[in-house]
Amino acid sequence: MKIIIIGASGTIGKKVTEALQGNHEIITAGSKSGDFQLDINSPESIEAFYKQVGSFDALVSTTGSGHFGPLTSTTPADFKKGIESKLLGQVNLVLIGQHYINTKGSFTLTSGILSEDPVINGANLGTINGGLNAFVLAASIELEKGIRINAISPGVVEDSPGYFEYFPGHIPVTMDKVANAYVKSVLGAVTGQVIRIF
Amino acid sequence: MKIIIIGASGTIGKKVTEALQGNHEIITAGSKSGDFQLDINSPESIEAFYKQVGSFDALVSTTGSGHFGPLTSTTPADFKKGIESKLLGQVNLVLIGQHYINTKGSFTLTSGILSEDPVINGANLGTINGGLNAFVLAASIELEKGIRINAISPGVVEDSPGYFEYFPGHIPVTMDKVANAYVKSVLGAVTGQVIRIF
Repeated sequence: MKIIIIGASGTIGKKVTEALQGNHEIITAGSKSGDFQLDINSPESIEAFYKQVGSFDALVSTTGSGHFGPLTSTTPADFKKGIESKLLGQVNLVLIGQHYINTKGSFTLTSGILSEDPVINGANLGTINGGLNAFVLAASIELEKGIRINAISPGVVEDSPGYFEYFPGHIPVTMDKVANAYVKSVLGAVTGQVIRIF
Repeated sequence: MKIIIIGASGTIGKKVTEALQGNHEIITAGSKSGDFQLDINSPESIEAFYKQVGSFDALVSTTGSGHFGPLTSTTPADFKKGIESKLLGQVNLVLIGQHYINTKGSFTLTSGILSEDPVINGANLGTINGGLNAFVLAASIELEKGIRINAISPGVVEDSPGYFEYFPGHIPVTMDKVANAYVKSVLGAVTGQVIRIF
């Protein structure tokens, strides 16, 4: 299976790459590293990326960032920046990628716990994650040729200790559980699901 | 109570205005009609609007539009246009309005059924609605001075028969139920809730 991993050098992307490599042809991509570089904020860059890579069987996205800061000082510009990256960036990987992916292929996006279990500073990421979770449900009933789509929604992960103080009382999830959620989405058969790891 | 209704001339806005007027000072606003005009796509226009209106006790938003069309032909530009209107437009009413609203005031936004019960053509609106539902939950834990925030999530409404064919098997909800959900959010005490009317 030819599997594209966008954000392959990130905290989660690294572990997903490790979990999938060996039995599959892995194409890594990111803003600055990997086999290919692309800017997920730019539909033109995404289109050019797919044209270079050609057809594929699965796309995993562990990329995109959001604004993390107090609601009272969050500006419309702060909020929009996150929406354009983690939400629209990942949505556009699907909108454009649906025309390049093979029959019975799959898309696996990354949302996160903040849409349903909010923390202080997390309104932008919560909104993004809630949008992504709804997108995979809606897209799953329209994607053609047996193409599947799921979102992985992790809690704060054990490999990101810098975030622990912002998630009081949250129990960090193991990277093993998180990586396996991506494996389930790519190699399994479910679609339209939010696979919650928390 | 001084209540602002954005989108007051719309299908839902009209009924919410009727339900709240009489006992309150109602300020209506819209893109083309109402006591004040504003463009919710423009943070500058929103800021100017609040400066004109001054402090207030409640804001109801029944405004914003999304793209409704097949996923396979939806472009990144189509998708972004809806995100900027119904999602970011309403979020910005809160981000900016939090600095003008009175102590113990409330924001009531409008999402909709498509985030959890999708229909063909509805991926953009589903995403928007999912984002809004998550936003009110996250914002509710950060808003200061006892300020509340909720979203009303209606199903297809009885006064929009043009949409019935796109919602097969959905039972249109009565305008009376929908309008009362807004009254509950404005005059009641709940916060961080998605009030589902379907």
